[in-house]
Amino acid sequence: MASLRSWLSIPRGSHFSLANIPFGVISTASSSTPRVAVAIGDHALDLEAFAANNGFSGLSTIQPHQAVFSQPSLNAFAALGRPIHSVVRKYIQTVFSVDTTYPDVLKNNSALQKQALIPLKEIKAHLPFKIGDYTDFFAGMNHAYNCGVIFRGPQNALQPNYKHLPVGYHGRASSVVPSGTPIRRPNGQLLLDPTAEKKVPTFSPCKKLDIELELGAFVCGSNKQGVPIPIEEAEHNLFGVVLMNDWSARDIQAWEYVPLGPFNAKNFGTTISTWVVLADALEPFKTKGLENDSEVLPYLKEKDEKTVYDINLEVDLKTSSGNTTTVSKVNARNLLWSFPQMLAHHTITGCPFQPGDLLGSGTISGNSPAEYGSFLEQSNNGKDAVTLGGGEKRTFLEDGDEVTIRGVCGTDEEALVGFGECIGRIEPALTLSFA
Amino acid sequence: MASLRSWLSIPRGSHFSLANIPFGVISTASSSTPRVAVAIGDHALDLEAFAANNGFSGLSTIQPHQAVFSQPSLNAFAALGRPIHSVVRKYIQTVFSVDTTYPDVLKNNSALQKQALIPLKEIKAHLPFKIGDYTDFFAGMNHAYNCGVIFRGPQNALQPNYKHLPVGYHGRASSVVPSGTPIRRPNGQLLLDPTAEKKVPTFSPCKKLDIELELGAFVCGSNKQGVPIPIEEAEHNLFGVVLMNDWSARDIQAWEYVPLGPFNAKNFGTTISTWVVLADALEPFKTKGLENDSEVLPYLKEKDEKTVYDINLEVDLKTSSGNTTTVSKVNARNLLWSFPQMLAHHTITGCPFQPGDLLGSGTISGNSPAEYGSFLEQSNNGKDAVTLGGGEKRTFLEDGDEVTIRGVCGTDEEALVGFGECIGRIEPALTLSFA
Ligand SMILES: [Ca+2]
Ligand SMILES: [Ca+2]
Ligand SMILES: [Mg+2]
Ligand SMILES: [Mg+2]
Ligand code: NI
Repeated sequence: MASLRSWLSIPRGSHFSLANIPFGVISTASSSTPRVAVAIGDHALDLEAFAANNGFSGLSTIQPHQAVFSQPSLNAFAALGRPIHSVVRKYIQTVFSVDTTYPDVLKNNSALQKQALIPLKEIKAHLPFKIGDYTDFFAGMNHAYNCGVIFRGPQNALQPNYKHLPVGYHGRASSVVPSGTPIRRPNGQLLLDPTAEKKVPTFSPCKKLDIELELGAFVCGSNKQGVPIPIEEAEHNLFGVVLMNDWSARDIQAWEYVPLGPFNAKNFGTTISTWVVLADALEPFKTKGLENDSEVLPYLKEKDEKTVYDINLEVDLKTSSGNTTTVSKVNARNLLWSFPQMLAHHTITGCPFQPGDLLGSGTISGNSPAEYGSFLEQSNNGKDAVTLGGGEKRTFLEDGDEVTIRGVCGTDEEALVGFGECIGRIEPALTLSFA
Repeated sequence: MASLRSWLSIPRGSHFSLANIPFGVISTASSSTPRVAVAIGDHALDLEAFAANNGFSGLSTIQPHQAVFSQPSLNAFAALGRPIHSVVRKYIQTVFSVDTTYPDVLKNNSALQKQALIPLKEIKAHLPFKIGDYTDFFAGMNHAYNCGVIFRGPQNALQPNYKHLPVGYHGRASSVVPSGTPIRRPNGQLLLDPTAEKKVPTFSPCKKLDIELELGAFVCGSNKQGVPIPIEEAEHNLFGVVLMNDWSARDIQAWEYVPLGPFNAKNFGTTISTWVVLADALEPFKTKGLENDSEVLPYLKEKDEKTVYDINLEVDLKTSSGNTTTVSKVNARNLLWSFPQMLAHHTITGCPFQPGDLLGSGTISGNSPAEYGSFLEQSNNGKDAVTLGGGEKRTFLEDGDEVTIRGVCGTDEEALVGFGECIGRIEPALTLSFA
C-alpha cells in the first residue's frame, strides 16, 4: 500500500498514520464533556469542534448526522452504517492529505487547527462505546489446545464441538474499562489444594491472576430478535477492532466454572484500547486464519479465504521495580473463527444485537511459548516460572505489575495501522472486614 | 396482614391489591410515549400524569425528582434508592385508602382520575427497565439436583461447588423481553445421536425447547468497580422482583456448553412479567429457603433466617388446540441462595452493578414432578411424556404452545401481592435459505 502523505507532521512509526484514522471518545481539561474524535499522528481531531466549524463542508452525506460527533460514545456514529464510516474516514484522509482538495477546511485554517487538533498527551480517552452486551469467544485454537493439554491432557485437548462452532460465553458488559484503568486483584473462593478429595473452598485474593491477549470487535448493525444475521452480511455489521486484555482469575475459575462456565473469574475487569480501528482500515490486512479440518455447517461458511487480520501483537510486562519485558509476540491470524463467523453463530438463534455490542476473539496464542497469550500457558499453570528481563520470575501477575498490549498492521513506518496501547496495572486486593 | 381498603373498586383476588403497588412502564393508544405507572386493581395509575397534576402534593421528598416518572424505564426511579421507593409506595397506598388523608389529590378529583387512572386492558406494558447486564443463577437446588441426576446420576448430581457459592452465568441482556412477546423457536447445532462416538452436529430447529420457571430481581444500587457490596447491604440494593421464564434450548445447550457454559441455548429470549413488585411489598412474605448443610463463607452469611419469598407459583400450558393445563405448582422458597447472597457473591470480585441490572434465581422446582419448573425434569429429558388436560402429550414445547407463569403472595383475597402474568407463545422456527 502506497503511503499517504499529510501536511500534518506525523512521526515515523506512528500507529495513527493517514492510512488508519481510528475513532474514539475524548475529553480535555478545558472541555470535560466527552465527544467523538479521530487520532492522527500525535494528535486527536475533535470531530465535534471540526463539524461545528464547517469541517465537513465537503461531505454533504454526513451533514444531517453531525450531532453524532457530540455524543459521549460512538454508538450513534456506528449506527449510521459502514458506508458512512467509510466516506467519513476517506474524507478525513483527504482533508489531511498533503495535496488536499479541501485546503481551506483545515490545512490553511490555523484557527480551526488550534481549536480542533489536540495533542494526544492533553486528552483523556474514554470507553469508546456504551456497551450493551459483551460476548467473549474462544477462537484462538492454539490457546484452546494449550489449555486443554494443561487440564485434560493432549488426547482430549480440544472438545468435540470446538471445530464445529465458535465456542463463547456471555460476559459482563459493565466491567469493560478503557486502557489505563487500574485493575484490582479480585477476592473470591478458591481451592488451596484442588487435588484434595474433600473440596472446601478458601476465601482469598486470587493467586493466579492472568492476562488474556485478545482482539475485540464492536458491532455497528442490529437485528430484530428472532432473525439471524447471515454470514455474508455479518461483516457489514462490524464497526471496528480494538485490543483487549480479558483479565482472568484462574483459581477462582477452576472452582466455580462447573457446569455453567466462567463467572466471577471474568467479571472484575476487561481492558480495551481506546481508539477503534475501522474495519475499512483493516481491509488491506485481511489474511487466512488457522485451518479448520472439520467441515463447517453452511451458516458458518465464508466465501473469502481471508477472514482474519494480520496484526502483530505484543505484550509487555513492567514490574513494580521498573523492569519491562516483552513476554509475548504473536500474530492475530492465530484464530480458527473470524468475527463474521462469531456474529453469524451468535445470532443464528435470533439473539438480538445493537450497535456498541462487543465481541472478544478469545486468547490469541501461537505455537511456541514466546507466542503464548496468557501466563496460564507460559507458566504451564504455575509449574514453570517465566524469567523476566531483570531476572525476576513470574508464574502469574503480582501486585504492581503493569501489562501493555500493542498491535500494529503493516511494515511501512509511514503507513502503519496500529491500535495504540491497552494498559492495565494490578492493584492489591482489598482487605475486607466482612469476609 | 390486615387488608387495606380502597375507595377505588379493586376486584377480589386481584394481584394488585392496595398491599402491592407494583411499578411498571406503560403506554396507551392515545399517548404512545412510555412512562412510569403503578398497577392497582384493574387499573394503572399513570405517574407522569399524576405528578404533573399535583398528585404528589402531599409528598415533598419526591417533588424534586418527579422527572423520573416521565422516563421510558424505571432506572431513574430505582436509582433514587429504597427509602424513596418506600415512601412513594406508602403515599400511593394512602392516596387510594378509603379514609385517605389526601382526598383532594385523587379520590375527589374525577378529572385526574379520568386522566391518570387507565384500565389495564387499555395499556401496553413495556420492559420495565433498560437492562445493563443480566445474570442468571442456578439457586433452585431441587432443579440442580434433578438435572444432575438426569445427566450424571444421583451420586454426583450436585457439583462440589454447589453448596459453597451461588453458581451462575452472565446472560444476554438484549434478549430479555416483556410478557406477551412471541418467542421464536431457535435454530442451531445439535447432535441427533448424542451417544454416537463420532460427534457431528446437525443444523436444525431446536427439538428440546423448554421453559425455566424463575424469579428475576432488579437491582437499584450501584457499586464502584473493585468494591464489593457486603451481604448486609445487598438487600438495600434490590428494587423488586418479577416472574421470569428463561426459555432454554436443551439440545443446543448439550452440544455447545463445554467448557464455557450455556450460550446460544439461552440467548434467544427470556420473558419477564412487566409489573415489578417492590422489595418492600414482599417484606411480609419473607421465609426460610432450602437448608444449606455446608458451612458458607462469611461473605455469604446472612443474619436473618428468612431470606427468600413465600410466593405460590404456577405454570399453565395452553396448546394450539386451546386446552390449558397447569403443569407445575411450586413455592418460590425452593431456593438454596437468596438474591442478597447472589449479589454479594457476584460483586465479591468487584464486579460493578448499575440500577436496572437483572438477577435470575435459577429454575424453581419442588420435590415432586407436579412441582418441577422445567419440562427437562417433568419429562426426564424427553423419556416420559407429560399428559395434558385434553389428552395431548408433551416432552418439550411444540409450536403454538403458550406458557403462562403466575405468582402470588398471601391468601387474603383482598390483600394479595401478586405478579400478574409472564406469558410467551412459541412461533415456528424460521426456515433459513442460507443454512
Ligand atoms: Ca477470554
Ligand atoms: Ca435459568
Ligand atoms: Mg473480563
Ligand atoms: Mg434466556
Ligand atoms: Ni432527594
